[in-house]
Amino acid sequence: MKIHILSLFPEMFTGVFNSSILKKAQEKNEVSIDVVNFREYSGNKHHQVDDYPYGGGAGMVLKPEPIFNAVEALPPSTNGKRRIILLCPQGERFNQQKAEELAKEEELVFICGHYEGYDERIREHLVTDEISIGDFVLTGGELAAMTVVDSVVRLLPNVLGKAASHEQDSFSTGLLEHPHYTRPVEYRGYKVPDVLLSGNHAAIDKWRRDQSLKRTFDRRNDLLENADLTEAEKQMLQSIKGL
Amino acid sequence: MKIHILSLFPEMFTGVFNSSILKKAQEKNEVSIDVVNFREYSGNKHHQVDDYPYGGGAGMVLKPEPIFNAVEALPPSTNGKRRIILLCPQGERFNQQKAEELAKEEELVFICGHYEGYDERIREHLVTDEISIGDFVLTGGELAAMTVVDSVVRLLPNVLGKAASHEQDSFSTGLLEHPHYTRPVEYRGYKVPDVLLSGNHAAIDKWRRDQSLKRTFDRRNDLLENADLTEAEKQMLQSIKGL
Repeated sequence: MKIHILSLFPEMFTGVFNSSILKKAQEKNEVSIDVVNFREYSGNKHHQVDDYPYGGGAGMVLKPEPIFNAVEALPPSTNGKRRIILLCPQGERFNQQKAEELAKEEELVFICGHYEGYDERIREHLVTDEISIGDFVLTGGELAAMTVVDSVVRLLPNVLGKAASHEQDSFSTGLLEHPHYTRPVEYRGYKVPDVLLSGNHAAIDKWRRDQSLKRTFDRRNDLLENADLTEAEKQMLQSIKGL
Repeated sequence: MKIHILSLFPEMFTGVFNSSILKKAQEKNEVSIDVVNFREYSGNKHHQVDDYPYGGGAGMVLKPEPIFNAVEALPPSTNGKRRIILLCPQGERFNQQKAEELAKEEELVFICGHYEGYDERIREHLVTDEISIGDFVLTGGELAAMTVVDSVVRLLPNVLGKAASHEQDSFSTGLLEHPHYTRPVEYRGYKVPDVLLSGNHAAIDKWRRDQSLKRTFDRRNDLLENADLTEAEKQMLQSIKGL
């Protein structure tokens, strides 16, 4: 996969892209990532990338030229198609399903504004996707882009080792994960549940599934609608609701 | 505000915390941020911070000692209370309201796991909050912590200049933002809407509000329930629905 990031703050990405899984994925050539400062594509001698909004009001607006020019200056895409993604609070909400969809692409371009708005013509005539990572406001699109890149790249083939397998991820079963415990068996008087020390794998599996269901019920009732539940589990949830 | 980050990858934070608004906020002493590598608090000579899960299964689990020890080694808090926040997919969904709540605190501690699970005793007996930035899986809690920090710090007094005022943020009105346009008035044949060039401020305000409503209706119908709408706006939405 090829990833291009357009940002006015390329130095923000260095630490994240050169650490951990993202670093390893690049070393294994599963992904190449480059960060372009679109100020270089302003097309004016003062390198101005934003300007006052037509119609008045506070704040600045990113001009169309630097973004159009920077995208068009990217190397030709291998298969002639690339997803061009605008990070913005108005975008489609990012989730694991979207991460899996983007992980199938060959080339992704991320456009990061930085506390300005975007000229609407960028949305209408350049980008293919608008994505939001949630209902909160960030200083810029950079952290949103890093978040999407991290969640997508870890899904690429050969990126995660077995130890970090994504098969047991939250959301992959449609339920929240069950509690985990490791050594010591007692810490400051707090003990690991007996069942996990029993060696009885059927009992352990049942405890974990029950805990997973209970946690999802307590915290994210909305996920249960689409979860794959047995008849017995549906009855168990009914009995929990009755408590 | 004081912010402490507990992470195994301190170098991931450097670029983000030393750029833009987060850099300025620290220079103005509105916030101090330190990143602690909790591997230093493992309490064992091999600096081991994770171990196999009791009951078997794939993946590793963060041990309780390094996290408890690292939190307890922080300098005493000024007012005796601090929010201790675990970043995890099972947590409460982060949003702008939560950002505003956290912006009122004097001290925040963020615990970032890295592809492992957390020993449940950390959740039960140490942390005050569990936060998720969305329904997707990241390599670790680091990007989630940076995201929360960015959205909180920009709300602190004196951090944003007027140009980057957060009064017009998405979500602050309960609606998505209207489209923005800046120069040139025509770009590749795409023109700025006439009303924005009219100088008629009442007409501009009405156009913007209508566009904001329409965009929210098209993309995030769920936000309209809690938005503050006039009777005329409610009727306009009814007529849009009728189209």
